[in-house]
Amino acid sequence: MAHIELGLDERLFPGITGPMRFRPETAEPLNALAEVLLRSLPHPLTPGERELIAAYVSRLNDCTFCCSSHSAFAAAQLDTGAVLVDQVLTDVASAPVSNKLRALLRIAAAVQRSGREVTGELVAVAREAGATDLEIHDTVLIAAAFCMFNRYVDGLGTYAPDDPQSYRSQAERVVRHGYGVALPTG
Amino acid sequence: MAHIELGLDERLFPGITGPMRFRPETAEPLNALAEVLLRSLPHPLTPGERELIAAYVSRLNDCTFCCSSHSAFAAAQLDTGAVLVDQVLTDVASAPVSNKLRALLRIAAAVQRSGREVTGELVAVAREAGATDLEIHDTVLIAAAFCMFNRYVDGLGTYAPDDPQSYRSQAERVVRHGYGVALPTG
Repeated sequence: MAHIELGLDERLFPGITGPMRFRPETAEPLNALAEVLLRSLPHPLTPGERELIAAYVSRLNDCTFCCSSHSAFAAAQLDTGAVLVDQVLTDVASAPVSNKLRALLRIAAAVQRSGREVTGELVAVAREAGATDLEIHDTVLIAAAFCMFNRYVDGLGTYAPDDPQSYRSQAERVVRHGYGVALPTG
Repeated sequence: MAHIELGLDERLFPGITGPMRFRPETAEPLNALAEVLLRSLPHPLTPGERELIAAYVSRLNDCTFCCSSHSAFAAAQLDTGAVLVDQVLTDVASAPVSNKLRALLRIAAAVQRSGREVTGELVAVAREAGATDLEIHDTVLIAAAFCMFNRYVDGLGTYAPDDPQSYRSQAERVVRHGYGVALPTG
């Protein structure tokens, strides 16, 4: 049971979808932010790579719903799929990603702890690996945004399904239609 | 010096205003979120009370720019002004606020640590003090959002002015014009 009365069946509207239905006025900018950060094109990072950063930060914040969701969204959009997502969530150091993406994931992990943890050295390593100002900016903001989304979802005590198929179905909708139109209409 | 080349004079565009100029595509939903969360009316919490929650969370995250800014925005919109803001930032337990606002500030402090720290008991205390579902929802989301804004501002290593007058001038603009049109145009 969520901490507030969402006025809906939480099994049909799990995680963030319940509070977004409860408060459409805030859902709109939240979805717009997710859309531009994670899916807008052209972008030097693929949607799959950006979803991977989101899933990784959600894992660090121990947010089951967001980590399961964005892992499924990343897996659906990365050539190497769920295997790579699991490797990144388990151990960034040994995961088979580019040095640039690894350096960006390390910046994201610093942001998850505190903005003040992002050092000039972490940024320099990313830059040496080829990261641009835009990639560094968006990595910091994706990581920061998931420190919000994760707290929103768990701070209201929302329901997170156990069934992996639930997240894969959600992934199909998001990959096809984007955020904001990803909520079930039933 | 910020961690990325913002392409502007950081003294003229301190804190979040620099990255927002650098990346207007993300600035738009960020400003829209701040506007609806902190300033939209009608709302059971005044803009001053909502800014106070934002300032308090920013203090807990040790974000100088956001704490100074939202303290000034709260002070400009609360009858008791800067004195009350200082009391809340120093010690919520003894600050002269209503039991409802104190309970909401405690929920905000839990969110700042982790969404999982919000307990049924904290929510029950707020509810007994008269807080509605909307007030609890918005408190959780304001606190979560400032865990994002604070990380965005500090994760990019932006400049925070020392001069209190800088924040008071910014407060005049925000109180009069709102977020999104609050950036200097010069």
